[in-house]
Amino acid sequence: MASLKSQQFGEFDLINTYFLRNSSPSIASKQESANVLLGIGDDCALLDSPPNDHILAVTSDMLVENRHFFSDADPKLLGHKCLAVNLSDLAAMGAKPMAFTLSIALTHINHAWLAAFSDGLHAISERFNCPLIGGDTTSGPLTISITAIGHLPKNNALKRSNALVGDDIWVSGEVGDARCILGIARGEWPPISGSENFTHRMHAPEPRVDLGIALRGLAHAAIDISDGLLGDLQHILKASHCNASIQIDQVPVSTLLSNSSRELRRLCSLKGGDDYELCFTAPNANAPQIEAIGRAFNLRLTKIGQITEAINEIESQSPSISQFGRMRLIDQDGNSLDDKQTQIYLKSFDHFESS
Amino acid sequence: MASLKSQQFGEFDLINTYFLRNSSPSIASKQESANVLLGIGDDCALLDSPPNDHILAVTSDMLVENRHFFSDADPKLLGHKCLAVNLSDLAAMGAKPMAFTLSIALTHINHAWLAAFSDGLHAISERFNCPLIGGDTTSGPLTISITAIGHLPKNNALKRSNALVGDDIWVSGEVGDARCILGIARGEWPPISGSENFTHRMHAPEPRVDLGIALRGLAHAAIDISDGLLGDLQHILKASHCNASIQIDQVPVSTLLSNSSRELRRLCSLKGGDDYELCFTAPNANAPQIEAIGRAFNLRLTKIGQITEAINEIESQSPSISQFGRMRLIDQDGNSLDDKQTQIYLKSFDHFESS
Repeated sequence: MASLKSQQFGEFDLINTYFLRNSSPSIASKQESANVLLGIGDDCALLDSPPNDHILAVTSDMLVENRHFFSDADPKLLGHKCLAVNLSDLAAMGAKPMAFTLSIALTHINHAWLAAFSDGLHAISERFNCPLIGGDTTSGPLTISITAIGHLPKNNALKRSNALVGDDIWVSGEVGDARCILGIARGEWPPISGSENFTHRMHAPEPRVDLGIALRGLAHAAIDISDGLLGDLQHILKASHCNASIQIDQVPVSTLLSNSSRELRRLCSLKGGDDYELCFTAPNANAPQIEAIGRAFNLRLTKIGQITEAINEIESQSPSISQFGRMRLIDQDGNSLDDKQTQIYLKSFDHFESS
Repeated sequence: MASLKSQQFGEFDLINTYFLRNSSPSIASKQESANVLLGIGDDCALLDSPPNDHILAVTSDMLVENRHFFSDADPKLLGHKCLAVNLSDLAAMGAKPMAFTLSIALTHINHAWLAAFSDGLHAISERFNCPLIGGDTTSGPLTISITAIGHLPKNNALKRSNALVGDDIWVSGEVGDARCILGIARGEWPPISGSENFTHRMHAPEPRVDLGIALRGLAHAAIDISDGLLGDLQHILKASHCNASIQIDQVPVSTLLSNSSRELRRLCSLKGGDDYELCFTAPNANAPQIEAIGRAFNLRLTKIGQITEAINEIESQSPSISQFGRMRLIDQDGNSLDDKQTQIYLKSFDHFESS
């Protein structure tokens, strides 16, 4: 780190140059509207309490170089993505973003990288009115850790445990593109004509914050799809002590996957991750209002299945299948996939099990 | 990571085994008292808002292996320390802890290490009624990132910018031991007889949470001493647009340093870091109440100087000295140290400037 010392560019310069943007009038006014009483530069940041009868939602995500992103990842997109994944968690609870903290370890000071990273970060921060209020900078292997705080009315949380038998299961947007793009980059399958038009789906996910807020009082349970649609949906089923039937060929995909083989489409859309769309459950009676929200936001919202009781037909001896969280996967011909096929699509990404 | 896969011990097992301790009745009741509505296991944790007329305090710290702690650091003490440094930041604002999130990257799953780390973490979490409510686990170079949330009455924040000319400057406890122990470990100076009785001062700092809360309405500004007493005090002076005079030989030290050479004592107590004591300023009229708090908590509280206007006598040509934040350092004979000596003690630790 001797070269850093000679440059006389230290921790406080780094924060002041790249992360302290309170001097911008537009940010200052947005910070004010988000009730930031004291931002970067003290022992703690200070935030006004949320509105009456609202509660706090808190989420943290850590991104590690060569695990969550490639070393040559575009720093501006990375700045976007590291906040986007946290805003996506707030969205999945129906929370409105208030503010976030950033702790970042850097191997060295690369001014071009930091300028682009902070540009991407501040752009999404401004767009979602979620200012950076503090954090930590240190030297170390490149690691980005964000905690985002939001608020929501006390009784409207879209908890994973809230799904009820009979609920429709919905998915926002289109899923599977990020996994398909990753597979091309890794050489798991050959490039697809036009796939370059879909790379933003992997690198610049759009958190469904407005949708999450709009679903308060209409949806029961929600989760954001980060580890794979079926694997993530299973968290809802286990938490809510129920099962589900899914029309797997109705799962919404973009033209990238609708033009691909059935196998690749199913693999990417059912098991792929990094989609950051919302999967949510809602009473059938609320379907018209949910469809209206989709039209208002110009966002595809698709019913893909139902919450059910136990599914005796696919009762299995496999010890990996617990009492709840089972899924009957139904294809476009109305046939149920067998247990072995089902398990292939159910397994989601685990940071400690993958190689 | 193949060995992890064969063990079938994944991310959720890791969280369930080491970090999800809600099943303990004592923790469950404490979580309830801390108004945790939903803990680990959903997209977000949910927390009740703080009491009426209270605001939120938020702080984040990241600890990186081989930068903030040695690879062979006792994991139980590390678990303690990584939350302690965040609670110390809350203390320095006068905030009462509510909850924290933990994001951790691990190179591999070491059960003995995780058991000891989580024991240390949960012990301090319980003691300060600050439950773990969520976070993230991933594989990667060992990195620990914590965000702690607290609350305090709206007008009682011990902000760095609140110091007023005429305030006394106080320090809690004794400072310099952590730096002295580190220097012995690094071979910067020879071992000191009995120093093994002081290693906890480096590895298990005690956050002054109760003191911070007790100082609400009595103290003006506060900071926790993480990077060195004078360097940290300078943040108060710059933020408050003032200067200070410090009786450097009155700075409270333990017997470890009071028995050492004058030079080592001054170096460790004035410039050393990792003390996590509070340095705070308060009107002289509040001195009797502050002394009473020290007696009530059985905690040494020492007046070490005063907040002053500009100090013309030590006006310097050095461009590194700005208009505010200057200190007159006075020794036990009443003599002021010259500018060069002063600068030696002023420079605090910078993660991007040290080698």
